[in-house]
Amino acid sequence: MSDVFSHPWLGGLFGDPEMAELWSAEAQLAHYTVFEVALAHALEAAGRVPPGHGAGAAASLADHAIDPVSLAGDVARDGLPIPALVRRWRAADPEHADAIHTGATSQDVMDTALALTLRAVSDLLLRRLGALDTALGDLSDRFGDRPLMGRTRMQAALPITVSDRLRDWRAPLAAQARRLEAARADVERLQLGGAVGTRHGFGADGQVIADAMAEQLGLASPDHAWHSDRGGVAHYAACLSGISGTLGKMGQDIALMAQQGLDEIRIAGGGGSSAMPHKSNPVLAELLVTLARLNAGYVSGMQNALIHEQERSGAAWMLEWALLPQMALVTGRSVSAAQALCDTIEDMGGS
Amino acid sequence: MSDVFSHPWLGGLFGDPEMAELWSAEAQLAHYTVFEVALAHALEAAGRVPPGHGAGAAASLADHAIDPVSLAGDVARDGLPIPALVRRWRAADPEHADAIHTGATSQDVMDTALALTLRAVSDLLLRRLGALDTALGDLSDRFGDRPLMGRTRMQAALPITVSDRLRDWRAPLAAQARRLEAARADVERLQLGGAVGTRHGFGADGQVIADAMAEQLGLASPDHAWHSDRGGVAHYAACLSGISGTLGKMGQDIALMAQQGLDEIRIAGGGGSSAMPHKSNPVLAELLVTLARLNAGYVSGMQNALIHEQERSGAAWMLEWALLPQMALVTGRSVSAAQALCDTIEDMGGS
Amino acid sequence: MSDVFSHPWLGGLFGDPEMAELWSAEAQLAHYTVFEVALAHALEAAGRVPPGHGAGAAASLADHAIDPVSLAGDVARDGLPIPALVRRWRAADPEHADAIHTGATSQDVMDTALALTLRAVSDLLLRRLGALDTALGDLSDRFGDRPLMGRTRMQAALPITVSDRLRDWRAPLAAQARRLEAARADVERLQLGGAVGTRHGFGADGQVIADAMAEQLGLASPDHAWHSDRGGVAHYAACLSGISGTLGKMGQDIALMAQQGLDEIRIAGGGGSSAMPHKSNPVLAELLVTLARLNAGYVSGMQNALIHEQERSGAAWMLEWALLPQMALVTGRSVSAAQALCDTIEDMGGS
Amino acid sequence: MSDVFSHPWLGGLFGDPEMAELWSAEAQLAHYTVFEVALAHALEAAGRVPPGHGAGAAASLADHAIDPVSLAGDVARDGLPIPALVRRWRAADPEHADAIHTGATSQDVMDTALALTLRAVSDLLLRRLGALDTALGDLSDRFGDRPLMGRTRMQAALPITVSDRLRDWRAPLAAQARRLEAARADVERLQLGGAVGTRHGFGADGQVIADAMAEQLGLASPDHAWHSDRGGVAHYAACLSGISGTLGKMGQDIALMAQQGLDEIRIAGGGGSSAMPHKSNPVLAELLVTLARLNAGYVSGMQNALIHEQERSGAAWMLEWALLPQMALVTGRSVSAAQALCDTIEDMGGS
Repeated sequence: MSDVFSHPWLGGLFGDPEMAELWSAEAQLAHYTVFEVALAHALEAAGRVPPGHGAGAAASLADHAIDPVSLAGDVARDGLPIPALVRRWRAADPEHADAIHTGATSQDVMDTALALTLRAVSDLLLRRLGALDTALGDLSDRFGDRPLMGRTRMQAALPITVSDRLRDWRAPLAAQARRLEAARADVERLQLGGAVGTRHGFGADGQVIADAMAEQLGLASPDHAWHSDRGGVAHYAACLSGISGTLGKMGQDIALMAQQGLDEIRIAGGGGSSAMPHKSNPVLAELLVTLARLNAGYVSGMQNALIHEQERSGAAWMLEWALLPQMALVTGRSVSAAQALCDTIEDMGGS
Repeated sequence: MSDVFSHPWLGGLFGDPEMAELWSAEAQLAHYTVFEVALAHALEAAGRVPPGHGAGAAASLADHAIDPVSLAGDVARDGLPIPALVRRWRAADPEHADAIHTGATSQDVMDTALALTLRAVSDLLLRRLGALDTALGDLSDRFGDRPLMGRTRMQAALPITVSDRLRDWRAPLAAQARRLEAARADVERLQLGGAVGTRHGFGADGQVIADAMAEQLGLASPDHAWHSDRGGVAHYAACLSGISGTLGKMGQDIALMAQQGLDEIRIAGGGGSSAMPHKSNPVLAELLVTLARLNAGYVSGMQNALIHEQERSGAAWMLEWALLPQMALVTGRSVSAAQALCDTIEDMGGS
Repeated sequence: MSDVFSHPWLGGLFGDPEMAELWSAEAQLAHYTVFEVALAHALEAAGRVPPGHGAGAAASLADHAIDPVSLAGDVARDGLPIPALVRRWRAADPEHADAIHTGATSQDVMDTALALTLRAVSDLLLRRLGALDTALGDLSDRFGDRPLMGRTRMQAALPITVSDRLRDWRAPLAAQARRLEAARADVERLQLGGAVGTRHGFGADGQVIADAMAEQLGLASPDHAWHSDRGGVAHYAACLSGISGTLGKMGQDIALMAQQGLDEIRIAGGGGSSAMPHKSNPVLAELLVTLARLNAGYVSGMQNALIHEQERSGAAWMLEWALLPQMALVTGRSVSAAQALCDTIEDMGGS
Repeated sequence: MSDVFSHPWLGGLFGDPEMAELWSAEAQLAHYTVFEVALAHALEAAGRVPPGHGAGAAASLADHAIDPVSLAGDVARDGLPIPALVRRWRAADPEHADAIHTGATSQDVMDTALALTLRAVSDLLLRRLGALDTALGDLSDRFGDRPLMGRTRMQAALPITVSDRLRDWRAPLAAQARRLEAARADVERLQLGGAVGTRHGFGADGQVIADAMAEQLGLASPDHAWHSDRGGVAHYAACLSGISGTLGKMGQDIALMAQQGLDEIRIAGGGGSSAMPHKSNPVLAELLVTLARLNAGYVSGMQNALIHEQERSGAAWMLEWALLPQMALVTGRSVSAAQALCDTIEDMGGS
């Protein structure tokens, strides 16, 4: 209840249901399952389990319903949900148990689920950024020729136009979208390494199995595991923060433009005040600044999470669990709030 | 679902239900209500509303049930829940509406609720820290005389005893508890300032009303509002991070002691592995390191939140909403995980 | 040359020569020497070296000139300067070498030097904060009755006076000064632990020697070493950030007040522009915001530095070396810039 | 003196003279001058100054010697060195003053200088990363077949080989090098916008002048200014942190391998101890961890620096001045320390 993104009432302001759905326990479970399904098929195709075992396991995996909360106790002990899941999956289909999780490790499952999640996150963000770009273009069409005082170091400098200001919101955002797009390749890739990252459990078939799984999952197939190489994930996180930071600048500008005395923007339906009914607060503009600074802090934790110990770190990896979903939520809400803000701008510029 | 503290299964590892309860929407609503009740009584006592109006308002406030989720739409517009709550409270008791929220502002309500919450947080943490100190003392009684290799810069240096190591976990924790205790006075104080922090709505009765409210609520009564003075809150947050950081050192030490080759500690019931059933992972020790680094990052956001604009900032204040509850959860879980870890230590030191 | 505080020209803006002097290599060397002098005397007083050896060593230590740069090669190898210094000191006075550094470790010397440095840092900051408080009081005397528009969430709310605004700069600063004063006890203390923090090299005389040294150095004498307990130092760092953060709010306010359209303040001698000679930029106000955000970031590193491994960490300790002096410089400059800003305010408030 | 990178003795450990040179005041002044020279030529080529004025100004600019320290007072007032420089340059050649800085603003000069500096920084880092890759390859050739215990969550898991471990240091570093290479295009570009970013002082010749200057300087020529678009710079900074973070993982691993009890690596010439002459501390390995965490913190400030106000921010821009050079120094030293560490490895793996 103390998470602003899912809080009963703060969620109304901070929440991003569409983004939250991508990170839901159900979505993660579904990703875990498709990983195991892909592995089962690949094991059979590579001849590492008897014919039919892969298909059989795949069927039972797909059928198996799990109550997420029922895993909490296992996670308290094991530190992650996969060992308990594997026990249940195998118990539910003992005949094909050899095709379930064989050769894989927990992090293979969870990192591949992350890859699938981040694919959807990128799709969502890029779609929204496209719409936001259109909205900013519309504002430029409507108000671009209006004069605006150019301000540097918070001081009036020389006159510009509204289109100048809008370009300085829009072009950097397009650049951030390009960076995110480029960062996708760093994260949309299968994780498959086994216990110590060497794929030793697959004998000579490691790459064949990996390629088959990656094909099924629509992910890239790197030639080795990235258990302790978190560079791609940290880089992606920095790209998220780049988006919210760029929108934080826009939010800061709008809050400044809305000041009485400057009166450079008019926004419909600003926030009410309990003490001053006449006020109209630029709540969404402020929110953009808040979200930008949140991500700016989180990105530091993600960089610290690069320091994995040896073949796999628990402590560093868990930092990602706590921070990366929050960063996606911050970024998602950042773009949706910017869109809502653009949609309520009634006037920009001076007379 | 993407918040590790309330996540269906990750909550089993990260969650701290007792701490989460203190930050629940219900608890916050209860605090909002007692603020308004105290204000209603104080307004009547100061003669600023007709006799009976304060008591009447207090009664209707206490009776009024609110569904937290029903506020989400209002928060989306207003940026905070209080304007909508005030409208509902007044609509439910139009006769005594003059005794509801009069002279106050949203931040008065929410900061006072924060003060009440942090009081409970401090009580909980200090109680747990006391128990942890006892547990560490017990470990010293049991294993203190056992030899241990003293290690500096991760290299074997000279022999010490287990009690030496334990003292270096225990004494810093006692110091952190003292710091938290000292920081309480900075946050357990009434917030009352009205729209712009000047208590202008109370005429000459501002301090009288504040004193009466503070007395009812068991908080200190500062002689002016602290709307834009977040120094106390940020300081408190740093104290939280001090606790988890100190426990992070203990967790790091335990993870190092548990290494094969050093074998300086034996812990019951470590985490299982999906690939290596023989492994026993020091999950809680790692968790302590993770939590320490989480708070270390969050504290930076809280320091940035000191930079309020003018009489009251939305952007900086919202940073606190997102970060402070998380920091309390991190810290609470940090202490409870340390306790659980101590409780499962079966052996320490060399032979 | 890339350090803004000592940069040839940026140092004109960021530099704080008085604070920098406290952290100079020469000042550190002087502290290292007084530590060893105090130890030599204490060893003799405790009878752990023959009569005259302590005094002899003290004399030769005080006489020994060291060129700081000559230690760079040793530090490249050893990671710290003390081993090389001890070799030189002992070589310069072989007769009394037994009274030099015996029983101590490098960190004892360097942490005690830090304690002495922070004592001077606190003195300097508190003296400056006192002067700044006076300056703010003077501004209140001069302009306090002038009207000002109270602004919340960056929107005009209700009229206040300049004295209301000034109180919200001044009172939080006084609170930060109190916090710093309280934090002194956590850092102004002797460090003495020997190789693994147990004072084993002093036999039964550890506390006697520590007490004697602390007495000579004017520091507190804790009953055990704090090699791996960085809680006090991290807490002190958070107090530094509290000061700069509070001044960042003041700087942000002044930058906002200086906006054309608001025109709530007039400052003499603002910064010139290469493109717009007519502009007068609120450079020092902006600098306060920059410095606040710098410290807000650094404090996170200091919290991560709590996670020492075992008896002593190199990696975590070195974080402090990089960050704490910078934080002191940020904070010192923050107060001096705020003072300079106050001294150039020519008008505040509306007409 | 309090900057570890230039400190008389700590500089022996932290310093990177080659990288520091790129950020020296002299190097910056040279970049400022080539910007103005390029502008002078471009103004003449575009016919915006009389024939000969551009060439004349270029000659006098190139001849003009500046003592960096002499600018400190100007920077104290103006907040940056360019206004004073322009005054001096023009005073030194009044005849061609019209070709000096005309149409440009301070940030054009300083950001273009940054672009030139970062080009050299990237060249240096990529060259070093190439050499480090070779060194890691050599280690793999020498020790790759040796067995090593694979360790996950700091626990012994299953045997691997030294080449497995080395691959997990080497491949992520190659990926970071690729990311840095890709990020170059985001920063190696001319800045030219004039007072408010619109190039208004160049009439219709803005792009022509920009293209001519970019051509001379070997930079990209964007079609508008990026005064307030810091996305490229922040992205570059994140790439720097990615490099040091990846090396922090290697350093952490080496410190762990060097533990007695594990004895998985032997390093020549580790750091000496003042109390324990027998010890050999893995100083450079620890340094890599420290540097990684430093950059991880700094990157947060760089993300906060995205939030520029309006056409140009002083407060946010100055954050970059303080942080980005430090990040380059951290990263540079990170790679050089990793190289030095590799060069001193005498043995890896078990028997």
